[in-house]
Amino acid sequence: MKVTGLSELGKRTAPPAISWLMQTTLERPNLISLAAGFTDNASLPVEITAEILKRIFSKRKRAEAALQYGATPGDPGLRHEAAARLGKMDLGGNSSPVYNAENLVITHGSQQLLYLVTECLCDPGDIVLVEDPTYFVYLGILQSHGIHARGITMREDGLDLDRLVNVLENLKSSGLLPRVKMLYLVTYFQNPSGVTTSFEKKIQALEILRRYEKDAGHPIYLLEDAAYRELRFTGNEEPSALAATKTPDRVIYAGTFSKPFATGIRAGYGWLPEPLRTVLPRVKGNHDFGTANLLQQILLEALRSGLYEEHLGMLRRRYQKKAAEMARAMRDHFPAWVKWRPADGGLYIWAELPKNTSTGQDSPLFAKALAKEVLYVPGELCYAPDPTRRTPRNQMRISFGGAAGREIKTGVERLGSAMHAVRAGRK
Amino acid sequence: MKVTGLSELGKRTAPPAISWLMQTTLERPNLISLAAGFTDNASLPVEITAEILKRIFSKRKRAEAALQYGATPGDPGLRHEAAARLGKMDLGGNSSPVYNAENLVITHGSQQLLYLVTECLCDPGDIVLVEDPTYFVYLGILQSHGIHARGITMREDGLDLDRLVNVLENLKSSGLLPRVKMLYLVTYFQNPSGVTTSFEKKIQALEILRRYEKDAGHPIYLLEDAAYRELRFTGNEEPSALAATKTPDRVIYAGTFSKPFATGIRAGYGWLPEPLRTVLPRVKGNHDFGTANLLQQILLEALRSGLYEEHLGMLRRRYQKKAAEMARAMRDHFPAWVKWRPADGGLYIWAELPKNTSTGQDSPLFAKALAKEVLYVPGELCYAPDPTRRTPRNQMRISFGGAAGREIKTGVERLGSAMHAVRAGRK
Repeated sequence: MKVTGLSELGKRTAPPAISWLMQTTLERPNLISLAAGFTDNASLPVEITAEILKRIFSKRKRAEAALQYGATPGDPGLRHEAAARLGKMDLGGNSSPVYNAENLVITHGSQQLLYLVTECLCDPGDIVLVEDPTYFVYLGILQSHGIHARGITMREDGLDLDRLVNVLENLKSSGLLPRVKMLYLVTYFQNPSGVTTSFEKKIQALEILRRYEKDAGHPIYLLEDAAYRELRFTGNEEPSALAATKTPDRVIYAGTFSKPFATGIRAGYGWLPEPLRTVLPRVKGNHDFGTANLLQQILLEALRSGLYEEHLGMLRRRYQKKAAEMARAMRDHFPAWVKWRPADGGLYIWAELPKNTSTGQDSPLFAKALAKEVLYVPGELCYAPDPTRRTPRNQMRISFGGAAGREIKTGVERLGSAMHAVRAGRK
Repeated sequence: MKVTGLSELGKRTAPPAISWLMQTTLERPNLISLAAGFTDNASLPVEITAEILKRIFSKRKRAEAALQYGATPGDPGLRHEAAARLGKMDLGGNSSPVYNAENLVITHGSQQLLYLVTECLCDPGDIVLVEDPTYFVYLGILQSHGIHARGITMREDGLDLDRLVNVLENLKSSGLLPRVKMLYLVTYFQNPSGVTTSFEKKIQALEILRRYEKDAGHPIYLLEDAAYRELRFTGNEEPSALAATKTPDRVIYAGTFSKPFATGIRAGYGWLPEPLRTVLPRVKGNHDFGTANLLQQILLEALRSGLYEEHLGMLRRRYQKKAAEMARAMRDHFPAWVKWRPADGGLYIWAELPKNTSTGQDSPLFAKALAKEVLYVPGELCYAPDPTRRTPRNQMRISFGGAAGREIKTGVERLGSAMHAVRAGRK
């Protein structure tokens, strides 16, 4: 007797990798977590949100709109603001019909968009190409749906395009191309590697995918996850893949307002080509009829009033400073044999240890770090379970997001000392 | 060439029935909609929410918590309040370990809970037993997942238990029992019929389901959707099915704070037995990591302060009055050959016309009603596409929820006049 009664998805869905990291954090009050990928409490827009709420609730009509159901694809005003902002980020002063509010849907965080897109495109047994390493929660979505991930090696400037071609060729010769539905890229300050993919590379990736569509028998989409795009410290903006053509019919763009504003206000958005533009809001309707209107009205006021931009400016300066603090501490305390690059945006630094030094959950280094009360994300969690290549086990993700004040320096110092100790113990 | 590239779910998911109703409403500014199932704007808790927000944002620590990520299963405080409230509704002053916060998960509206439960329990080709008629958006979830619905006739006091046994016997003899995963009931002031299922009947339904588990080879759950439970005008509370045993291991309970408080603050909750208690939060983590914390903190303060209860009291009186206005107008203006009962809670009245009078989207009555600028929900939308019985086409759902002031009387008057006209045209 099959006692569970669960669906295949229910049986399949694994506990999320982050749950034991969270559990470990909760159990150790003195732990410094360099694992958590969220913004620190002191950076949250308390005064700004209070001001926005005062404005919304000072007018009965506006308050009513915020407390009532909205349309499933999202508030028309917010969709308009999001589309205009996206257009401005991509094109500067130029305009284009691509950035039309009708092409956007508002979701309960961009995480929900990733879920909905995957539900709408992929069946169990399908294949999604991902970066190697990639965002581990997305790997959880794939695992849950019985979708196979194939990892594409990353280079210092993003995806290895030769490897992309190799993988597609291999899939073609093994007859698996019809199962390939999309390429998932975290294109700005990637989680976990910190790498930003150039515009040129995105155009080339789209061209490569297009060449295999005939054999696939259907479109192969590029899902561009731009979650960290707005957390850029300096330098110029790379346009999104939407700017690659006048009719970006193979690009799905996932944006978010949560990380650049407040993670407790979950609202993200997706730019969708057809047929997703029609189908995805139907599925979203079944999920929740639409993202809570109050959240949308707060963000709409934040965007229109310029308070969003003001907060974002503060956030960028703050995280630039924290990233620099982390880099300084790493220079001071990490062994010379650890390879890493300072962050120019986002929340993460990726560190690579010598090949024979494991960072995994069961490794001496992880145990030593925990004993010293510091937590990192073992790099292996960020690799798809792809049997066609060996999973690297000598990397780690650390974040300057959640840690604040002296915690960054102290955390890095502890971690560096754990590294020294573990390597010394070997000899 | 399969041009879409969509998944089976993506290809299957039909446009929601309500989308054309919404579209029709938008296109006709003079239309009185008796179709919409939401609360009217004037009843929204504008001052109460403003006060709650002032309290949250007056303390930096509290505001930070509201603007930060929370745990995936929900805020521990809100889970506790929800569990305690549920226990009180079920048991009055008595306590029971059943109503433990650990058994609850907070969702983005109870709609999301229905989605998650269905995802976790059902595969394409599985069968869910539903009331005949039932909540049409839930039928959309089933349709989207390729799950078959079997309708169980309703009586004036809820489910026809003899019919439930018949349907299960038929499924047993056709070897389909292993596909049956649950019975979905909207147990309080049902959408659309307005019927409340007695506690006794829920106990009996559970006993019946249990008898078929051996042949099914797995548990058969009762999913109790209590969305309208708190919108009771008078009379005594029927306990939920959770009160049926000391270990309600076959009951899933879906509750909501959205309808009794504000629909723009989407937060619902589920009481879950194992293995769903373990599995469902994992899937929820993939959806969105957890419902936006700001929404949860608002509801927590509303519940703790008594402001929720205060608003609910007002809402009950207001909707009791509106329901009475609708009943009065129906008595005055509906033909005597229309059968209906006044509402004692919820948002809906269900009206049955003579068998040969169709209410469907293509019927003369629907056209006549639209010409007179009044909209209702054709009853046939609320019936599962179940080939084992004929779909009734002579019913309609009307709501005193969205319409306000004179609209109720005028809308009913227009609808009654359309009914008279259509029947007269026949002779």
